[in-house]
Amino acid sequence: MDDIEIEAVAEVDLSDPVFIEGLPGVGNVGKLAVEHLIEEFEEATLVRRIYADVFPPQVSIDEGVTELTHAAVHAVETPGEGPDLLLLTGDHQAQSNEGHYHLTDAFLDVAEEFDVEQVFALGGVPTGELVDEPSVLGAVANETQLDELEDIGVEFREGEPAGGIVGVSGLLLGLGGRRGLDATCLMGETSGYLVDPQSAQVVIEVLQDLLDFSVDFETLEERAEEMKEVAAKIQEMQQQQQGIASDDDLRYIG
Amino acid sequence: MDDIEIEAVAEVDLSDPVFIEGLPGVGNVGKLAVEHLIEEFEEATLVRRIYADVFPPQVSIDEGVTELTHAAVHAVETPGEGPDLLLLTGDHQAQSNEGHYHLTDAFLDVAEEFDVEQVFALGGVPTGELVDEPSVLGAVANETQLDELEDIGVEFREGEPAGGIVGVSGLLLGLGGRRGLDATCLMGETSGYLVDPQSAQVVIEVLQDLLDFSVDFETLEERAEEMKEVAAKIQEMQQQQQGIASDDDLRYIG
Amino acid sequence: MDDIEIEAVAEVDLSDPVFIEGLPGVGNVGKLAVEHLIEEFEEATLVRRIYADVFPPQVSIDEGVTELTHAAVHAVETPGEGPDLLLLTGDHQAQSNEGHYHLTDAFLDVAEEFDVEQVFALGGVPTGELVDEPSVLGAVANETQLDELEDIGVEFREGEPAGGIVGVSGLLLGLGGRRGLDATCLMGETSGYLVDPQSAQVVIEVLQDLLDFSVDFETLEERAEEMKEVAAKIQEMQQQQQGIASDDDLRYIG
Amino acid sequence: MDDIEIEAVAEVDLSDPVFIEGLPGVGNVGKLAVEHLIEEFEEATLVRRIYADVFPPQVSIDEGVTELTHAAVHAVETPGEGPDLLLLTGDHQAQSNEGHYHLTDAFLDVAEEFDVEQVFALGGVPTGELVDEPSVLGAVANETQLDELEDIGVEFREGEPAGGIVGVSGLLLGLGGRRGLDATCLMGETSGYLVDPQSAQVVIEVLQDLLDFSVDFETLEERAEEMKEVAAKIQEMQQQQQGIASDDDLRYIG
Repeated sequence: MDDIEIEAVAEVDLSDPVFIEGLPGVGNVGKLAVEHLIEEFEEATLVRRIYADVFPPQVSIDEGVTELTHAAVHAVETPGEGPDLLLLTGDHQAQSNEGHYHLTDAFLDVAEEFDVEQVFALGGVPTGELVDEPSVLGAVANETQLDELEDIGVEFREGEPAGGIVGVSGLLLGLGGRRGLDATCLMGETSGYLVDPQSAQVVIEVLQDLLDFSVDFETLEERAEEMKEVAAKIQEMQQQQQGIASDDDLRYIG
Repeated sequence: MDDIEIEAVAEVDLSDPVFIEGLPGVGNVGKLAVEHLIEEFEEATLVRRIYADVFPPQVSIDEGVTELTHAAVHAVETPGEGPDLLLLTGDHQAQSNEGHYHLTDAFLDVAEEFDVEQVFALGGVPTGELVDEPSVLGAVANETQLDELEDIGVEFREGEPAGGIVGVSGLLLGLGGRRGLDATCLMGETSGYLVDPQSAQVVIEVLQDLLDFSVDFETLEERAEEMKEVAAKIQEMQQQQQGIASDDDLRYIG
Repeated sequence: MDDIEIEAVAEVDLSDPVFIEGLPGVGNVGKLAVEHLIEEFEEATLVRRIYADVFPPQVSIDEGVTELTHAAVHAVETPGEGPDLLLLTGDHQAQSNEGHYHLTDAFLDVAEEFDVEQVFALGGVPTGELVDEPSVLGAVANETQLDELEDIGVEFREGEPAGGIVGVSGLLLGLGGRRGLDATCLMGETSGYLVDPQSAQVVIEVLQDLLDFSVDFETLEERAEEMKEVAAKIQEMQQQQQGIASDDDLRYIG
Repeated sequence: MDDIEIEAVAEVDLSDPVFIEGLPGVGNVGKLAVEHLIEEFEEATLVRRIYADVFPPQVSIDEGVTELTHAAVHAVETPGEGPDLLLLTGDHQAQSNEGHYHLTDAFLDVAEEFDVEQVFALGGVPTGELVDEPSVLGAVANETQLDELEDIGVEFREGEPAGGIVGVSGLLLGLGGRRGLDATCLMGETSGYLVDPQSAQVVIEVLQDLLDFSVDFETLEERAEEMKEVAAKIQEMQQQQQGIASDDDLRYIG
């Protein structure tokens, strides 16, 4: 195997597609969001698999059949006027510093193969406490994109996220911007302690406004309810154990 | 030296050989099994050595003479109707993430050089407690292999092993499957705390059924008896030290 | 992206430029010094950006717009008789052993592209205690440079800094010297616990003498005052907490 | 710089030279031995420097002048009938797994450039306690070398050193043997806690017998005396501190 291999699974004819990434990260917000889109757009087609020796040396197993660790790109021909979608997700980030760069370059090669001009990196930004109504923070590779995003409620806060954006999401903007693509990062506020379907939903809602599509949120809302119950139970247990409890005492639960 | 070098030690003429891997891992089940096969088939011939800079920078010493760390492939012309065997073992896994990929590719190159169409990766699956009658769990790269294995008692359990299969064993299925080979992982149940010759035996018994050969188990059974005594002594010591003891308190003993 | 990419941002015509490096390090002395020079020479022009996959996989964010991690080279045409300046700074060192070598080679490629014959690496040398009047220690790649530096007060002390000089600063001398460049390291004494603008100032003062330029120090002096107040407050807090306090108890504050 | 660079410093005409390596390791036995040979053979000529990006990114400083980390090969034309010598030493081992392989290959390239047919790797083998009269253990790449070594008192003990030989010394035998060179490792017994000039001396004495040269040991003997005093003082301090003391309580002092 080459260090990185892009496997063409199917060919589709897309109109002006945008590329949307959701790999594992804070609150799994990006991954939940992209997986939800793939589920809701029933006609989503797996078009590319990306294998890389910077992924863990591992196979997953489904009903006894193994699958080599990879990232997957699904194509969606949206019903409305908006652009078609290329949806990237997977179970792993790269396992090395250099690997993040090389993997992101491969993802951008896929995007450019489909004549993508706009890339979205989805993720979560940790707030350290449970959030009732999460906002969506933004960052862009290209200043000209700022106004449209602010108009639909994406927030740009000085110095946030502290430390910039790391991993594939950050590099999609850094390397994508250098390739001349419009690259945007949308980050849902999330505690940082729990998988957060609610934050994934607000991020998708921003995409809906921007890209003129519409999906159902019932399954995400159900999972958000479940996570709220989990959070409540943990807080209760902590109150019993410690006398006092605060949101900050929550440990991350994936 | 190149990053990976395959040294041809001898050439043999094999009929429809299968490739069987047993490198160090949980309970050393795979390595014990393959080493037992090499011992029992007295006519086993060393055919290839694989050197790699992702192995530890180390030589072993036998009666004053050093040998560079490597993996070895032995060929066995089986007496019966079944396929001939290529048996891979060694003292080490790769020392880096990428190394697992490159090394597995080299092993598959050897397999394909001998026109192998079927690959077996042998290993152990940890249960966390001592097992009296270990089962053999399976995983396959290719769905069509499932029925034959289930018919002879290999178990396929949803969600096991949790976390998939890592290292060379996992990648033999992941990368071997991508090359179009039939690749199967056979995992003997084992506590995970002790070297487990009994688990190695049940794995070999599955191979015997599948590949129509037959070996003696006397030496493995002796070693299994020894390990049972070791386990009993450890439990006794722990009971004396701690008042109470459970299987879970055992530490791994290689 | 290639492993390392040098982006030409602007072209300038410089007369006999010297190359001055100030990346993050002990007391951030080198980075503070070079950033001060870039601020004070208002006509400084960004001429090169150096991207590398051994930098962290990260973008920084300024008013919502991202920038891929890189090192930057600014050019300054000095008003006086002295040589022009190429000023290298950035937010990160390389993240791997080999990366330091490859990155330093790229920096030297930039220097040689501008026909540089003299390289300065700026940094701090930790003393372990607060220093009232920091000296500047030196090290050179080429023995012939020693006299001129000693004449203007740069100190060369046997066995200092202990352990030699590591990272890009060390390699600029090691690799620069091998290329036949005159390479000098100037290290301001600093506690090692605090960012040290005063130490940065004494390092710049040596450069002024050597290179015949002159800058204002008001902003550095203000920051030095602030850091002295920070140090005083920390010592006070420690005295309250511990009864006794010594300089050695200070923790590093970046 | 290339990943590894061999710099030709001088050319010499040697008769049947042998290659002797002494890099840092247990008790620094190998490095002490080779450095002693370089000192005692006053006509030793520096012939090659080996630079590598797997060495630490570092320069050492001598009287203000820096030197890039490297390994050095000195040539000695011995006065007697015995073979001439190529003496390899340096301040560092490789910093990565793969680096040990690539660096050793470079060292062997130098050896073969000088038509070397015999390689010696010098080192220490830890005993865990202070040794009054250290033996020299051996290991060889080629069985035919065993008898001559046993005849002059080199010991070959089953299972020693446990774990084989790691690092450059091990690979000189592993990779050197694969190149068809006669490669021998000579390991002086040493506590493993202290730099051990006495152990270095007994290793050199074996070389003298084998290679028919003779050096003075006064300086090594003086250093051995000093180390014995250091050891005695440490034991005394430990007895005062702990009531009881044993050799095993010594910490390593480089």
